[in-house]
Amino acid sequence: MHRADLPLVRVALLGAGNVGAEVARILLEDSEELGDRIGARPELIGIAVRDVSAPRTVDLPQELLTTDAEALIEAADVVVELTGGIEPARTRILSALRAGKPVVSGNKALLAQHGPELHAAAAEAAGTSISYEAAVAGAIPIVRPMLDSLSGDKVNRVLGIMNGTTNYILDQMDSTGADFNDALAEAQRLGYAEADPTADIEGHDAAAKVAILGSIAFHSSYTIDDVYCRGITGVTAEDVEAARDAGYVIKLLGVAERVTAEAHDDGSGATAATPTSTSAGVNLRVVPTMIPRQHPLAGVRGAFNAVFVEAENAGELMFYGPGAGGAPTASAVMGDLVAALRRSVAGGPAVAPSFHAGLPATNVDDVRTSFSLTLLCPDRAGVLAAISTVFAQHGVSISTMQQRDLPDAPERPGECLAELRIVTHRARNADLVRTVETIRELDEVLDLRGLIRVESAD
Amino acid sequence: MHRADLPLVRVALLGAGNVGAEVARILLEDSEELGDRIGARPELIGIAVRDVSAPRTVDLPQELLTTDAEALIEAADVVVELTGGIEPARTRILSALRAGKPVVSGNKALLAQHGPELHAAAAEAAGTSISYEAAVAGAIPIVRPMLDSLSGDKVNRVLGIMNGTTNYILDQMDSTGADFNDALAEAQRLGYAEADPTADIEGHDAAAKVAILGSIAFHSSYTIDDVYCRGITGVTAEDVEAARDAGYVIKLLGVAERVTAEAHDDGSGATAATPTSTSAGVNLRVVPTMIPRQHPLAGVRGAFNAVFVEAENAGELMFYGPGAGGAPTASAVMGDLVAALRRSVAGGPAVAPSFHAGLPATNVDDVRTSFSLTLLCPDRAGVLAAISTVFAQHGVSISTMQQRDLPDAPERPGECLAELRIVTHRARNADLVRTVETIRELDEVLDLRGLIRVESAD
Repeated sequence: MHRADLPLVRVALLGAGNVGAEVARILLEDSEELGDRIGARPELIGIAVRDVSAPRTVDLPQELLTTDAEALIEAADVVVELTGGIEPARTRILSALRAGKPVVSGNKALLAQHGPELHAAAAEAAGTSISYEAAVAGAIPIVRPMLDSLSGDKVNRVLGIMNGTTNYILDQMDSTGADFNDALAEAQRLGYAEADPTADIEGHDAAAKVAILGSIAFHSSYTIDDVYCRGITGVTAEDVEAARDAGYVIKLLGVAERVTAEAHDDGSGATAATPTSTSAGVNLRVVPTMIPRQHPLAGVRGAFNAVFVEAENAGELMFYGPGAGGAPTASAVMGDLVAALRRSVAGGPAVAPSFHAGLPATNVDDVRTSFSLTLLCPDRAGVLAAISTVFAQHGVSISTMQQRDLPDAPERPGECLAELRIVTHRARNADLVRTVETIRELDEVLDLRGLIRVESAD
Repeated sequence: MHRADLPLVRVALLGAGNVGAEVARILLEDSEELGDRIGARPELIGIAVRDVSAPRTVDLPQELLTTDAEALIEAADVVVELTGGIEPARTRILSALRAGKPVVSGNKALLAQHGPELHAAAAEAAGTSISYEAAVAGAIPIVRPMLDSLSGDKVNRVLGIMNGTTNYILDQMDSTGADFNDALAEAQRLGYAEADPTADIEGHDAAAKVAILGSIAFHSSYTIDDVYCRGITGVTAEDVEAARDAGYVIKLLGVAERVTAEAHDDGSGATAATPTSTSAGVNLRVVPTMIPRQHPLAGVRGAFNAVFVEAENAGELMFYGPGAGGAPTASAVMGDLVAALRRSVAGGPAVAPSFHAGLPATNVDDVRTSFSLTLLCPDRAGVLAAISTVFAQHGVSISTMQQRDLPDAPERPGECLAELRIVTHRARNADLVRTVETIRELDEVLDLRGLIRVESAD
């Protein structure tokens, strides 16, 4: 078919920020090549913005800008939503879907909060789809591979470095010994962190992505409220150094993990003191975590992202790439857009993802991971016994314990102190919390610090 | 919908080898869960084999085995072909496609030779599809992400470690200092290499994958005959050691790379002596290549595979995982199968990949890469000048040259020898070949060895 003969498909773009401007550029520059791939020429018919005269980083044709998003959606065949935030994005997407128009979105906050509603709207309007590769890990193809390539497998765990800002900060702390505040300031100076970095450093951004990816991986609907979330503001230079000494690196991991009701034996022979009524389901969490330096995720440096998937048959897979940035994220948007348009051209309804499994989100209390912690103690007989007893009483089994004498500890001049580094076997989070509470009150323990989860320790 | 109400879809499996047996197991064990994901219950109606009474590693229901593949295909809704080889696989797949039945195949030899014919047959029978995730890099989702996720981007280069056997051998050579034959014997002992390892160690297996993946990445049809192929049998322990000393590791890389007609300036200011009538297109090759140790591909150990993609907007992406094995490869097959069945259930035709671009496969003569080589020379005045002159005459610019004196060289007792390690800037392959031919004939050069390509050196 000659290019001139190709039918046109009208694309409405909502938002002209960092990513939106790149999507506009690609659509305007590559329309012919994209037409050949799609079998129809995508025509950008307008870009909805809040203020048509606002200054922009990329030159966009002024005549495409409009403040009337509703009219633009009405005139389009497909809608690309890159405005962010819940409203008016939600209402606009719902109206497009209900009119049978495919929607491509990069709006992680919206998807993580109202995903089920949006999927339902797409399913009701036969033939249409909502796709959102750009909402998780920027340019990295992970949503679609999870939906399609792994659709015949059983995913057991997803571990992701899904926030570039925090990975940059932790990588700086690891490679230069910087403390958190200095590394954050450097990230802000280089544009890796925003002036208000809260959403990144508190883990909220990663938590939204965990909710989205976990829903797909486990064929169940989760929202950000199902995700237990701890940021990296409490990670100290000492924690990073201690991890390095032990052959680990600290990463902010987003985790979605299958929890089976039977998995109560940690192999240590210890019996948990609290009743372990762990229910089957999926635990979703974002927590600073020590991972061994030889783990593929440990090599993910700077602002890069990566998602590590453990599946029953596939084994261990990793997807790596830029987790943010205008052009990379636009690549993910364009992939969704081309796929949606190819489907329109081919005819027939889109395939909807399946969220049939209904696996409940489990409480973090029931999560079983290893922990690392450091205790400061007087260096005398009986201390080890007292501490070991507390662990045993709470059913938390110790994997390794290293003692280091601190003869000249500045905290207690004239006293002989020892630093104990303990790594536990896998234990229930609730049991570990109670262990720590009790240990803090022991006379034999002067300080407890560096309490952090460990992946793949046993 | 209650599970009992789900419609059935009939699956024919051709082949009960390593992968086929795992696919059968998954279909038999997970039929209910797969039914929920698909919206129809997949029923394995038969497994075509050459000999129903042959011994098998996995227990398969005897009543499913049949030697009548044609009747099985006739009775099925979808066909999974895992027999390997060109015939009868080709004829059977064509007949299934022409009957409008989707086909899932893991047959890389067939796809790399007859891909265009198979795609054409699928396109002519409206509604059907041929998919083959399992044919490239085992469990790693790369075919589908390339077809869909990157469909709105412009791929510039694909670099892959796509053969586990050769990666295991090279990794052994690198980590233990073993020579090629010992590493091969170890790989055979552990089951990573076959008794006849030719297809792996000569690069043919990787070349088939490069043809398949390159076709998708560049929207053009290539066969294995378009792929320039060199195996690893000539890689010596000395080459591996020299690479390590220089901060590199040798990998057998499959490369599909966009070549632009303009890219003649290597930035060194040197002018090529031969006319550089490089034509635009795509170069496809499998060659042992030195890559820097900090490159993400350098960390791919043992029998693992990885595909590194450089795209205009996405930037650098990597896909990592097990490249072979029954269950991992079965995971890729099952992903294709579930996707094909979901499409059948939804109705409407499958989306065909686009091979419209018609970028020609370029000759390896025109490929521009850096090279590393080592020369053994007498340690006297004028040698460096003579060698440098030859490089300059052929328009090959030297990036780094390191000299090491070998006062006690066993080859020439009593003579002072020097070893020169040279890394060039990017140069046309043909120019480098002529340079090497001329250098070999110099009186000043006693030996030339370790000639190997270098990626990302400039």
